Amino acid sequence: MILTVTLNTALDITYRVRALRPHTSHRVTEVTERPGGKGLNVARVLAALGHEVTVTGFTGGATGRVVQDHLTGTPGVVDALVPVTGSTRRTIAVVDTTTGDTTQLNEPGPEIAPTEWGAFQEAYEDLLRSASAVALCGSLPPGVPVGAYAGLIRTARATAVPVLLDTSGEPLRRGVAARPDLVKPNAEELAELTGSHEPLQATRDARRRGAHSVVASLGAQGLLAHTAEGLWRAAPPRRVHGNPTGAGDSAVAGLLSGLVEHLPWPERLARAVALSAATVMAPVAGEFDRAAYETLVGQIAVTADATAA
Amino acid sequence: MILTVTLNTALDITYRVRALRPHTSHRVTEVTERPGGKGLNVARVLAALGHEVTVTGFTGGATGRVVQDHLTGTPGVVDALVPVTGSTRRTIAVVDTTTGDTTQLNEPGPEIAPTEWGAFQEAYEDLLRSASAVALCGSLPPGVPVGAYAGLIRTARATAVPVLLDTSGEPLRRGVAARPDLVKPNAEELAELTGSHEPLQATRDARRRGAHSVVASLGAQGLLAHTAEGLWRAAPPRRVHGNPTGAGDSAVAGLLSGLVEHLPWPERLARAVALSAATVMAPVAGEFDRAAYETLVGQIAVTADATAA
Repeated sequence: MILTVTLNTALDITYRVRALRPHTSHRVTEVTERPGGKGLNVARVLAALGHEVTVTGFTGGATGRVVQDHLTGTPGVVDALVPVTGSTRRTIAVVDTTTGDTTQLNEPGPEIAPTEWGAFQEAYEDLLRSASAVALCGSLPPGVPVGAYAGLIRTARATAVPVLLDTSGEPLRRGVAARPDLVKPNAEELAELTGSHEPLQATRDARRRGAHSVVASLGAQGLLAHTAEGLWRAAPPRRVHGNPTGAGDSAVAGLLSGLVEHLPWPERLARAVALSAATVMAPVAGEFDRAAYETLVGQIAVTADATAA
Repeated sequence: MILTVTLNTALDITYRVRALRPHTSHRVTEVTERPGGKGLNVARVLAALGHEVTVTGFTGGATGRVVQDHLTGTPGVVDALVPVTGSTRRTIAVVDTTTGDTTQLNEPGPEIAPTEWGAFQEAYEDLLRSASAVALCGSLPPGVPVGAYAGLIRTARATAVPVLLDTSGEPLRRGVAARPDLVKPNAEELAELTGSHEPLQATRDARRRGAHSVVASLGAQGLLAHTAEGLWRAAPPRRVHGNPTGAGDSAVAGLLSGLVEHLPWPERLARAVALSAATVMAPVAGEFDRAAYETLVGQIAVTADATAA
């Protein structure tokens, strides 16, 4: 199975209001809920692609139970979340129906006690034994040490399980130094890590800092992959319109499934870009449009770049 | 026991953010939760005053379970909520820490099926048999007929249980016509009901429409009571500062406890005004400051008004 780690799981709630006006009262016209946190999104896409996936991380309180109820209803996904005393966070996206603009409110997540963090590390080591690959995804809840991902990467490497890291800020910086097999920063995260806004230079720098391969997501321009085997750019055939929520997580699922299927890099990248675009095009945020994916995956332009050296 | 009815129960969530800016992302620095819906607030205050209270209305879904868990932890309050298929609503108050200004997001509440409304009416009739008084509080969830309160008032009157109505809009208009013992509108609700912004005239008009007694809450000016026994004004000794959330519900609890204790009107009004002011002064929204209440209750100026006739 593929293991995804979401230390800061969430219940993602979307509210529709006519137009958000600070310091007034609003009637919410529509409420939707789904489990959130990047690793859970990645798992859902992997399962839709036919992979067996186990999700771990933390769950707590009434919101954690709701997240777990949703997971129970997701075929192909096994719930191995570790219970904690605190409560799983909610995120609220308030969408103005008049313009489609979104205002985001993110709860901080539960305070994780040192014993809870210890219990997670033990569970993680056990789960790695039957994992073909592992993805470490998203932000850290309060109480988890900032070097958490670096430690989890070292554990995966010690058991020879390929490890992908998708996070930002200091957890990314420390994680990269622990030499993960793959990191998937977006342009902003990459610039924050390397100080460079030039993607080619920045991906090279990220590899120098320890990442074995770097796949940067450049929004509508697709992906830029800098690996030991070469450098590629992969882009969709046309600009797609829709909601970009979850597009990065779908790209991670594409890369990870390609890795465990031992696909050559160009095919992995084509899959990742097609899934990402099919997610933007889906009517429901964070889902992917399967028909669009199956059409797009044959239309992705993947070009090798000789300037890689 | 005293029965309070909250057809649109809620989980009231408060988020603190630095300052709400539409179409940006916010880190919530503090999350607090409490059961909400006016009738639950009234019940909590009645229980704190030493009364036995039973709460009814609807509960559903994960949010309903959270509300019920909170109620289980509230001494003196018996949970007789009726389960429904839909999910109890959340309300979110987003407080700017820089200014204290609040932005409110209110979910609509569960859609109540006709069979669920029927089940509630049966439960209500059963509960009335052991009730010394009943309060009907707040908005109606979708699916409940707009004349719901009128019907519940007629049932209470048929079993000789004194009934207080605290709602707004069309449910208030229809409820008043069913001749409740007491209505407690605020100035805005009263103006909407009667078309008059002059409280003395408006309370007289509300009685003419069917309410046996009318107690209007006039914010910092306290209460204006128009009853068969006379007309009174009751005001706190000084302007109090704080959060007015729940002040109206505390006033309802004061009036209702005074009714079942057969206090004369001036004492009922003094209690209601003192509870209301002590709620504004409490550090936690919707709680009341007991020491402040005990001091204030002896300082409320209640004046009879000869212009009543």
